[in-house]
This record gives sequence, C-alpha cells and structure tokens, in this order.
Amino acid sequence: MGGSIMGLGLGSPMARSSSVIHGVIRRFASTRMVDIIGKRIAVIGGVAGGASAAARARRMSEDAEITVFERGPYVSFANCGLPYYVGNVIKSQDKLVLASPELFMKRYNIRVHTNTEVMRIDTRGKVLVVKKTSDDSGESSVWLHPYDELVLSPGATAIKPSIPGIDLPGIFSIRTVPDSEHVRQYIEDTKAKSAVVVGGGFIGLEMAENLHHLGLKTTIIEGLPQVMAPLDAEMIAPVHDRIRASGSELLLEEQVTSFERKDTGGPITVTTAAGKTIESDIVIMSIGVRPVVDLAKAAGIELGRKGGISVDASMRTSQPHIYAVGDAIETENVVSGEHELVPLAGPANRQGRVAADNAVTDRQVRFRGVQSTSVCGVFGLTVASTGLSEKTLKKLGREYAKVYLHPGHHVSYYPGAKTIDFKLLYDPKSGQVLGAQGVGEEGVERRIDVLAVAIQGKMTVFDLEEVELCYAPAYGSAKDITNMAGMVAANFIRGDHPTLHADQVQLGDYFLLDVREQSEFQAGHIPNATNVPLSELRQRMDELPLDRPILCYCAVGQRGYNATRALMQNDFEVYNLSGGFRTYMAAKAANLLLE
Amino acid sequence: MGGSIMGLGLGSPMARSSSVIHGVIRRFASTRMVDIIGKRIAVIGGVAGGASAAARARRMSEDAEITVFERGPYVSFANCGLPYYVGNVIKSQDKLVLASPELFMKRYNIRVHTNTEVMRIDTRGKVLVVKKTSDDSGESSVWLHPYDELVLSPGATAIKPSIPGIDLPGIFSIRTVPDSEHVRQYIEDTKAKSAVVVGGGFIGLEMAENLHHLGLKTTIIEGLPQVMAPLDAEMIAPVHDRIRASGSELLLEEQVTSFERKDTGGPITVTTAAGKTIESDIVIMSIGVRPVVDLAKAAGIELGRKGGISVDASMRTSQPHIYAVGDAIETENVVSGEHELVPLAGPANRQGRVAADNAVTDRQVRFRGVQSTSVCGVFGLTVASTGLSEKTLKKLGREYAKVYLHPGHHVSYYPGAKTIDFKLLYDPKSGQVLGAQGVGEEGVERRIDVLAVAIQGKMTVFDLEEVELCYAPAYGSAKDITNMAGMVAANFIRGDHPTLHADQVQLGDYFLLDVREQSEFQAGHIPNATNVPLSELRQRMDELPLDRPILCYCAVGQRGYNATRALMQNDFEVYNLSGGFRTYMAAKAANLLLE
Repeated sequence: MGGSIMGLGLGSPMARSSSVIHGVIRRFASTRMVDIIGKRIAVIGGVAGGASAAARARRMSEDAEITVFERGPYVSFANCGLPYYVGNVIKSQDKLVLASPELFMKRYNIRVHTNTEVMRIDTRGKVLVVKKTSDDSGESSVWLHPYDELVLSPGATAIKPSIPGIDLPGIFSIRTVPDSEHVRQYIEDTKAKSAVVVGGGFIGLEMAENLHHLGLKTTIIEGLPQVMAPLDAEMIAPVHDRIRASGSELLLEEQVTSFERKDTGGPITVTTAAGKTIESDIVIMSIGVRPVVDLAKAAGIELGRKGGISVDASMRTSQPHIYAVGDAIETENVVSGEHELVPLAGPANRQGRVAADNAVTDRQVRFRGVQSTSVCGVFGLTVASTGLSEKTLKKLGREYAKVYLHPGHHVSYYPGAKTIDFKLLYDPKSGQVLGAQGVGEEGVERRIDVLAVAIQGKMTVFDLEEVELCYAPAYGSAKDITNMAGMVAANFIRGDHPTLHADQVQLGDYFLLDVREQSEFQAGHIPNATNVPLSELRQRMDELPLDRPILCYCAVGQRGYNATRALMQNDFEVYNLSGGFRTYMAAKAANLLLE
Repeated sequence: MGGSIMGLGLGSPMARSSSVIHGVIRRFASTRMVDIIGKRIAVIGGVAGGASAAARARRMSEDAEITVFERGPYVSFANCGLPYYVGNVIKSQDKLVLASPELFMKRYNIRVHTNTEVMRIDTRGKVLVVKKTSDDSGESSVWLHPYDELVLSPGATAIKPSIPGIDLPGIFSIRTVPDSEHVRQYIEDTKAKSAVVVGGGFIGLEMAENLHHLGLKTTIIEGLPQVMAPLDAEMIAPVHDRIRASGSELLLEEQVTSFERKDTGGPITVTTAAGKTIESDIVIMSIGVRPVVDLAKAAGIELGRKGGISVDASMRTSQPHIYAVGDAIETENVVSGEHELVPLAGPANRQGRVAADNAVTDRQVRFRGVQSTSVCGVFGLTVASTGLSEKTLKKLGREYAKVYLHPGHHVSYYPGAKTIDFKLLYDPKSGQVLGAQGVGEEGVERRIDVLAVAIQGKMTVFDLEEVELCYAPAYGSAKDITNMAGMVAANFIRGDHPTLHADQVQLGDYFLLDVREQSEFQAGHIPNATNVPLSELRQRMDELPLDRPILCYCAVGQRGYNATRALMQNDFEVYNLSGGFRTYMAAKAANLLLE
C-alpha cells in the first residue's frame, strides 16, 4: 500500500493550487496520480453513511486516496429493502446491491475491501489494523493501513436479548443481505408456514407484512402497549386493527421468556411472560438496534449518554481526524435539542456528505441535526411522523398543544377518498410546529413531508393556515389537511376555539353535547352525552346548562367547532372535543381515557 | 327584510361585550335574536370564496345577519369537480352540491338566495338592488337589501371569443353545475362520438381526459406551442406525448377560425387558421376565464391592471365596507411581487376567511398572497408547479438559475418506480427557492408541496439539501428528489458544479462529452458528442482537450456531475449539462435549442 510514497502529498495544498505541476504530473502519471498526492481517507463501513462519505470525498478531492473497509460481503447495499427481499416483493438479490467494489473503483476510483474488518485504530500513529478474510480459502490476512482522515460508519446491530433458546436455528435478525438470504432459504428449505416476529417497530412490521405476503401465519409480539413507538398510542389504534384484519396475530405488552424446539425439525415453541405459547416455524427478532461502538471505544473515542459515538455538528468525534456518521452516532434532534440515536438512512447519507466535506476540504460544513421524520407501510396503511411526539414532549416537560383531524386525503365528492388520521403538536404560545403524525391509506407521507419542511423552517400554525399546496379534486382539498390543522390550532391560540382532549379531562365533569345528527348519535356515542344536532342547536339552546361547562363533539370536530362558536357567543362555557368521536374512540382503544 | 329594525345593533359592540343584556335577549328572543342585533353581512356569490366568507362570518359573529346572493341555482358547489361529472367519474350531481340553502340556514343560520342576481350596489346608501327569478313561474321580484359589510365573490366566466359559429348548439363551456349537466345531456341525446376541446389549460385537459374517458374521440386545439402554460415548455414534452398516446389528437399553435354545422343534426366543422378542418359532435371552449367585474365597476370599485377587482391584503376594495375575494380579484404573487389573476379554489377559500374576519371583527387580518401552486391530472400524469416559472422570471428580468432532475419517485430497487421530471428555479446568489415544476405518474404533488412550503418559508437551496422527509423504499429515496435538487443547486452556487443548460448555450461551442456507457451512447446521443464512459474517464483523460471547454452529460446528470468534478480538478474547463440527455431531448422537443 506504500505508506511512505502516499505520504508525499499529505496536507499539501499543491494538488489544488498548482495547476502547472498538477498538469505535468497528469501527463506523465495520469492514472496513478491519486497514489502520489492527496489525503488518505479511510472509511470504516460501506453502507449508507460510509458509502456517501466515500463518494462525496471523491467528488471533492480527485487526488485523495479513498479506501472503504466493509466487514460484510457487500457495500452500498439497500438495507431498507431487506424485508421486501425476504417477502419476494424485491425478487432478486442483485437489486439490493447498489454498487460493487468494481463499480466503486471504476467510477469513483475508490478502493473497497469487503469481508474486511478493522481490528484497531491507532489514533496516535493514524494507522488502522485491518484483517481480511478471503472469500475462497477462508484464510485471513492482516495489514496496516495509514490514514490522514478517518470516517467511522460502523452502523448498528440487532439487539439480541438473553432469552433461553435465542440461538436456536430458525431464529433470525435482519441487518444484512446474507441475513435476508438466510431467511429466504430457511423458509424455502423448511417450507415454513408460520412466523413469530418479536418487536413491532418499523422493521418488525415490515417483516411481518412480508412474511404474511409469503403466506406465513404471522404473530407479532410487542412489549409495549402499541406498535410503532414513534407515534402516540391513540394514533396507532387503526394500525392494530389493520394488522389483525390481515389475519396476523398481534400480542401487545407481552415478553418472550423462552424459545424451545421440542422435536428436531419441528416448530419453535415461543413462550411469553403471560404464559402463552406459540408454535412457530421461524422467528424474526427485531426489538431494536444497538450502535456498533467497540472499535471507537477502544480507540478512546467518547460515547454519548445513549451509548452512541459522540460527534459535533461537523461529524467530528473526540479524536482528531476521526469522523463518525450513521446509525452508530448520537445526533442532535433539532426540535428537542436532545441527543438521540437515529438509525435512519436519510440522515446517515447527509452526515456522510458533511463528514467528507470536513475531512477533505478546508470548509466548515455543519449537519443540521435530525427531526426524526419516518414512514412505514403496514398492510396497506401508511404510518408516518416528524418532529416530537406527545409522549416525548411530556418526557421533556415541554409545553404543547395538539390538534386531531380525520379528513379525507382528497375531497369527498371525488371517488376514492381515504381518511387520514392526523395529529399536530405545537407550542401553544408561539404556535411553532413541534411534531405531526399521520395514519391512512393515501397521502399521509405527503402531509408529513409538508410538516417536516414547516418544522425545519421554524414555521408556526399561523403559517400552516396559509400554506398553498397542490389542489385538484383527485389531489386534495381547497383547504388541505395541513391548512385545516393550522386553522384549528391558530383558532385555539387566538381564543376562538376552546378545545379539550379526551385523554386530558374527566369527561364526567362536563355536560357532554353530541351535535351530530340523531342517526349518528344512535349508532354510538360517548356515555351520558345529550344529542342536539348542530342544525337544531340555535332553536334548542335553552335545553343547555349555563351553570356547567359544556364539552361538545361531533364525528371529527368540524360541526363541534361551529357549535362551540355559536354557544360561546351565547355565554355558555363551552369546549370542543378535538377530533370528535373518532379521536375519542381511538383514545379509548389506547386506554388513554381518564377514569 | 326590515332594514330599520336590523339597523338597531349596527356597529355596536354590545352584542359581544354585554353578556347580561345579551343573555336576557337570548331568553326572550332566542331564535330570532340575529335579526335584532349584529352587523348585516351581504355576500355576492355563493361558491368557494363567498361560501367561505359567509361560514367564517357566522363563526366569528353569531349575531350577524348574513345573506348570500347566488346568481345560479346552487351555492357551494364543487366547480373543480365539473369535468369529472361530465366524464361520469363523479356519478351523481348531488355529489357536486356541497351544501344547500336549507343546510346553510339550519347549520349556520345563513340565508342563501339562489337564482338571485344583485343588479346594483348603492355604496352611499349601502344597499343592494336584488332580483330573484322564481324557479317555478319564471317571474322575477326585485327588492332592496341593506348591508353593513359587503363581500364580493362574483367569480369568473369563460372567455367566449368572437369566432363565427361560436353560438351553435353543441358548443359549451363549463363553469357551473347546469353547464356540466347540459354537456352530459347533449352527449347522451346526440350519442356524440367526437369532441373538440379548445384550450389546453387545466380545465381543457381535464375535460379532454373526461371526454376520452366517455369514449369520445377527442381533439385538443391549443394556441400556444404547449399545453399547461404555467409550466415551462421543456417540461411539457411528456405531457404532449401522453395526450397523443391516449389516442387523442393534439393541435398546438393552432387557432380556431370558425365553427359551422353543415347539416342539421350533423357534426360541427371546426376550421383552424392553418386550414385544417375537424368534424366534431361537441365542442368545449376552455381558453380561459375572465373576472366578473361589471357590478363592481358600476359601483365605482377600482380594477387592477389585469382587469380584476383591486384589493389590499385585508381584501378591501377601493370602496369602504366592500371586500372582494376569489377569481374576480387581483392578488399579489408573493414570489414576484406582481399582481395576478389567480382563479384557484385554495386561495379563494382563504381570502373568504380573511374578508370575513375583517368584515365582522375588529381584527386586522391579512392575506399572505398567492404563489400559484397548482396541479392537474392528465391521462395518468400529474403535472404540478409552484412559484415562478422560467418564462415568468425572464419576463420579470429576474436573475435565476435552474436545475433539472429525472429521478424515480422512489428507490429503483423497489418495484414500480416512476420517473419524475423535476425542475427547480432559484436565486443564484442567495439560493432562495423561486419555483418548482414536476411531471410524472407518482409522487409529483408531494414534491411540489414540499417546495411550496419551502417558498413560503423563504427557504434556500441550502435548506433543501437538508430537508428530512419520509423515507422507506416504497416512499422515496434516502436522498429525496428535493434533497438532490437542493444539493445540485447548492453545489452550483458554491462553484463545485459548473452546469450549463441545453437551451442557453450553442452546443457547437463545446467539446461534447457523453460519459454514459457505450450501449447508452449508441442508442442515441447529442450530435458530435464523444463517448468516454465515466468508468474509463480517469484512464482516458488525455483524449480530452485542455484548450476547449468541455460540456459533459450523461442520462440525467449524476454521472455527468461526477465526471465534471473529476475533470475540473484536472484543469479542464468543464460543465455538466443539467438534466443530461433527457432534459436535452425535452428541450429539443420544445424547440428550445439554440441554433
């Protein structure tokens, strides 16, 4: 690898500043020039963050010597696609491998070592101890690799709980292409008919959907009272319904206590803390991931409180010339100011770019931080969120207010409108948008994206009132969901629309007024509610108490708002139940009602 | 109507401030209270803007007397849905009528007069002269209606050019529910098999698609060289292709010079300026709309330079106590600062709200202005834009730069990715986003919405680099299109990525370098281009001229960017062709290449 020769141009600005010398060298040594001058950039980990860093480094410095070390057999693979490869939605493994070491060399002049582990970082000598295991012979070779700048992108590994039987054949986690290949193979070989997925996060749900797609009878076991922890519990009721409607089983607030295979070749018996047993041909563990930090830790690099590698906004670690990006690091949430582990591909890619800029140029480039925008498809539902959830706001002790809406994804008069359950969180003083969550069949990611940009731009609910989005009957409403959410929130702040939430008040303290039509009321209502349809309200106000607060509600909040306006101007103390009967039912399903 | 009695409470804050008196009145005169106190709000025009103003006025003032006068038989109808009702996508006319006068009365205590025209506004006496034509007898009655505050929402009418034969039966325009009913009826009665649509704007294209959907052989005649004028010409090439692929005929840069029916009951002969004749059973005129301003003009209300009613940001006209909203007004484009006619439902609704707030409360509420976000579905393609187009920027003499991208709407490894043709316009100094356009089958409106919010938040391309949107394989890419657009633009501003555009340079002035693979090159390339694939570029740099600027390109721009970076660091004067071969072909199709 010729450390001494490569050292020649280290830190020298010659490469970029002296075009004469440069030109001469180009003429004489055109293709090998990169070995003679330029910084040596080493990247550990060749997936999202690492691959981005390497490619960006090349674009920013043609004469850098860039080397990527990847422990696994593939670089730049589509880890987000793995569940869909298992489910045969993505048919071919080739599709998952976005770039080969050969392509990296040919297109970007980047050397990639796969099946190669960095054993140690010598931060003083700026040298890596590298070990490669040959594909064919299985023999390994060890060498030293000097670097000028180092980017760590080691990623995260699946958490493997110490449950009896966890190492049984047929129990898998999905982090790499070989992992997903093994699962496919195992299902084919054993003709598996049933699966247990432990963990109801993104990957767990994507795996469950894909196993279901393959025809396996699937059971999801989740320790919390809800799947998809980034969203608040009351938003998830339709997700639970959807999972169960698919024919899959969903066990909530359940822990696996053991795995056991009673007969060779037979199913695995999964036993839970509640004493339930499930026979399953295959088990997928997806209870979460843990940042890979051993190498960094051994090199004296500081970790954060969440156990990830600590970096500043330039992606620099505590050790000079060492950067870190991706799932292994802690990064600042721009809405909360807290440092978090955020194992998402989008931020990883952008962090890789920032690290490369800082490593190979003299620019000061900063990463904005994350806001935890995420989306997941679950049996035809889209579940998405951005910013902070209500539970996080509570944990942080931040003041917040919220809005629930349940509109169609486009106008109701155009066929095919699908309801979106939408929640907006905002600062009740400034109106600043703090977070948003959406669940529905269509158009959810679009609205969450709108809110993501609003959060980034530090926009308020007053801005949301005025967003001007794409509207035609098949695409939305003249007042989009995001406009409506802004209007409801802004009305609240202006004092025009006193609202209360089903999970924040004792419903018994209020005169409950259902302003829906009689037929709707009869089909189901909040216990002890009195029905006065909005269309009769002005004629029947004398039936309402002036000496007791009124909590009025309709199906989703709109008629309730009109009723609230009419009543408050007639001297009633009145509040509208945000999100109406639909949010009430969701809060009830999530056991959030106060007793 | 009792003007004198109603006058009692005019301008008096009593209604809101004195709860004692108010309460007493409520007890004794509960249901008719609104007739005794409160402002008299009159609204002319009961569709989008007018209906919004009326409903908002009621929410803000329970004791206002609110009256809506609507010339046509329906209020609050879904005019955006009319083409889809013609096409029987929306099956029932009931779906189009969102609220009846009865509902307005029952739910909102708003009196609606349909089939009622306001003949004159007496601005001094603050009285309207109103004429109602009875549905049954056809007899009409005229009365005076006093107002305290007046909101004009008269809308726009279809432009009817003075072409010989324009009044023939079988020639229609579509602005109202009866219009669309007449077209449906006519098609049914005459068993129409063919249609000509004159005008290729939103409504023209929606009509063409719907007539096609009904099985009519459809011809679109457009005077400009492109349909969908809000977008730039080179973006529209795929739209033209799509229209023609549907089997519809598309005549561009063509004017209709006459309509003629040679035989009674026979088809209409449509003759164009170029001498072409088309036999058609039905003709839809949709060359644009004109604001309805006669009443306003007669009342001495100032008009703007575009012929619409002039209003300030509070929606006030030049006459005290008169507001105007919707298609009839001129409103400020927040990006250009120019006043425009913007006949779109979204702004109309929000303007109605602003006018109502200012009319019935003492608040100072302002309308933000418009940014002309729009979307249209055309034979399965979504065509959307926000902010300013390149042609508008040119007209305004504004400095701008642009980016073209052609990525998939989600990652390519997940099945079903559809290409989006995307264009971003920005300020080349500050990076501020000025406009965006998108065309594609999926995910277009979502990206345009993201850009719409970015424009509203006065965000820059540096902000776009960092937007954090929903990503999972079925929903996008780790670097979203909007990130990519921001990165390309920011790279350009930073000087990292010199780009040129096919419509802005003489291609012959450059050494044209095609860095795609040989097979791609052989399938079609820019004349006189030399092919050196990116993967061979570093080995073959000595084949390239140092004494001549190089314009390199690939399929869509990405490999060209990498090649540009490599070459510029090796002392070549090099530029990347934005959007690559795909944008070049689109510019060529739109006749935008310089000769």
